[in-house]
Amino acid sequence: MRENMTKEKQRINIDPWGKALVEDYSRLIKEFGMQTFDIEEMPNPSMQMKRGLIFGGQDLNIIAEAMKKKKRFYCLTGIMPSSTKIHLGTEAVIQNVKYFQDNGAETYVLIADVESQAARGVPIDEGRKRAMEFHIPAYIALGLDPKKTKFYFQSENKTVSNLAAICSQKITENEFRAIYGSVHPAKVMSAFTQMGDILFPQLKEPMPGVIPVGIDQAPHIRMSRDIARRLKKEYGFFAPSASYNKYTSSLDGSFKMSKNESVGKIEIPEDNEKELEKKLKKALTGGRATAEEQKKKGGQPEKCIAFEYCKNHFIKDDKKLGKMYQECLGGTNLCGECKQKYLIAGAKEFFKEFDKNFKKAKKSIGKVKFIEN
Amino acid sequence: MRENMTKEKQRINIDPWGKALVEDYSRLIKEFGMQTFDIEEMPNPSMQMKRGLIFGGQDLNIIAEAMKKKKRFYCLTGIMPSSTKIHLGTEAVIQNVKYFQDNGAETYVLIADVESQAARGVPIDEGRKRAMEFHIPAYIALGLDPKKTKFYFQSENKTVSNLAAICSQKITENEFRAIYGSVHPAKVMSAFTQMGDILFPQLKEPMPGVIPVGIDQAPHIRMSRDIARRLKKEYGFFAPSASYNKYTSSLDGSFKMSKNESVGKIEIPEDNEKELEKKLKKALTGGRATAEEQKKKGGQPEKCIAFEYCKNHFIKDDKKLGKMYQECLGGTNLCGECKQKYLIAGAKEFFKEFDKNFKKAKKSIGKVKFIEN
Repeated sequence: MRENMTKEKQRINIDPWGKALVEDYSRLIKEFGMQTFDIEEMPNPSMQMKRGLIFGGQDLNIIAEAMKKKKRFYCLTGIMPSSTKIHLGTEAVIQNVKYFQDNGAETYVLIADVESQAARGVPIDEGRKRAMEFHIPAYIALGLDPKKTKFYFQSENKTVSNLAAICSQKITENEFRAIYGSVHPAKVMSAFTQMGDILFPQLKEPMPGVIPVGIDQAPHIRMSRDIARRLKKEYGFFAPSASYNKYTSSLDGSFKMSKNESVGKIEIPEDNEKELEKKLKKALTGGRATAEEQKKKGGQPEKCIAFEYCKNHFIKDDKKLGKMYQECLGGTNLCGECKQKYLIAGAKEFFKEFDKNFKKAKKSIGKVKFIEN
Repeated sequence: MRENMTKEKQRINIDPWGKALVEDYSRLIKEFGMQTFDIEEMPNPSMQMKRGLIFGGQDLNIIAEAMKKKKRFYCLTGIMPSSTKIHLGTEAVIQNVKYFQDNGAETYVLIADVESQAARGVPIDEGRKRAMEFHIPAYIALGLDPKKTKFYFQSENKTVSNLAAICSQKITENEFRAIYGSVHPAKVMSAFTQMGDILFPQLKEPMPGVIPVGIDQAPHIRMSRDIARRLKKEYGFFAPSASYNKYTSSLDGSFKMSKNESVGKIEIPEDNEKELEKKLKKALTGGRATAEEQKKKGGQPEKCIAFEYCKNHFIKDDKKLGKMYQECLGGTNLCGECKQKYLIAGAKEFFKEFDKNFKKAKKSIGKVKFIEN
């Protein structure tokens, strides 16, 4: 099924609002002027880097340089408080943010309560409540240091909306359409608010910054870089750097995991272990047509969602992941056995760890710093 | 020259960012679904109403009803602090606001410092300074009651920018293009901020509202009415009413007076009486080719900018204006004499009055109320 999709796809579309998967990341890099991720230049590469989840970037050498020379740089990500869950794709981005934070980045996390209200009808107060009770402690539980992270609510940051208006002067209608595919007013408002967010940390003092994103967010990076260049003379902005994560596949491997889809995703927290097990058992694998064939030829981990999830999220121990991989190739386990042994066991451990850290994080919520602007 | 323009104009464009004059207001009313202004239904009609400066409107009967029954309604206008002057077209709108305020409207005046920064590069602080030192006292000098007017700065009103994002969800790309002629991102950002402004006074309690505008602002009214209807279920909004002023002509009668044009306009304040006189002497008139012909046929006040300015701005005394009109028709004066007697004398009186009131208003700036949101 995934092979068919590749053949059908004549043109690669990157759409922050769409749900298509990407098959050919090297083609993406070429067509969209991205740079291949070069792990050699990054100090202390993270698990996500070593395991190939980050496939590309933009000017990451500038960030690597800042890290090595201990110069100021920032890292920024956002929380959309429209749901009260975080799916695995978002978890991977948070891990990237943690990496840059651990290596010296001034870290900004905005809560997109304005967009959450406008696009999903979540009232500002409700968005704030969700962020305070779930998202912020969850981001801390997943590794962010509350003492080193500056949070802010979009609804309270007027500097961002003022900057958004300035940014909107620097892009023509046709440029916007070329980047985003359409010029729907709501997209325009949302995109420029994000431009305000991305450049906001540079207002007081311009500095390099890195925005770790899933590849679906690449249009925002592209526009922010154009705008930063066009505002360089006036504001001294650095064009933001970025790291690009591959899409996280849905359980059946047919689309990208997304908060906008109700099915096919693994979300944090997972309160029901039985439900989790049931879902994971349905994950697409790279198994062969018959047990016979599998024993003979081995499985295909590169096509296996169970392996993808273990590699990018659940199994942090390289040796254990190596064993899963080898056993698959060697045809040692049938897919059902492998799922039980690695995927389900790994996921349970992951969620147990999260729950423990989340409880702790809830207690440290008082230490969280909110930006006054 | 003006007749030629009429013939050339095949299609009427209303563009808040353009500079064309409109010749045929009845055609405009028909093509854009406006309503002819009906002075009969308005209580205590103002000078601008009686003299035909207001030619059209939208649901003004609802406002007339609220005035008569002393029900709550609001009136809103904006200050663009990009310059430190107010031209005559804006003065006329302020007179409309004064009329509605005098007749019971809760009055809101926003300072568009965000747009002024984004579109004209005036820093927020500078915009604030200009508003405090000039625009706000000038609006008071022109008739607004500081005790009854609520001012706010766009840069400080988060509720407006949050509401702008909600509004942007309710209009498609094609609808926006149909209303504004293009979907330039900066226009989108600016237009939806204005939607936030226009509907903001209804957020706590929905009520009828009237936005007095020059006809060039009609697209904003149109979109705000569409959005209000689409948000009615959720927010209970009334579709805003509007009064439409005719354009104020430039001195030579060839385009609309505009803050974006450096020439052809009369601005408040006027510090140099000699300059003022010099400019007014150049105003286009409805004079005939020769003195002979003028004495015989009389002048054409309907084509005369001097008469337009006196009628809509400078001469408040109906008798005096009537005399000017009759003398013109009768060929009593040549245009130079008429200008001296009515236009220049009237303007001098107007500016003297303004200066006196402005000094007084500067002293009452402490009474001005700013909205906390």
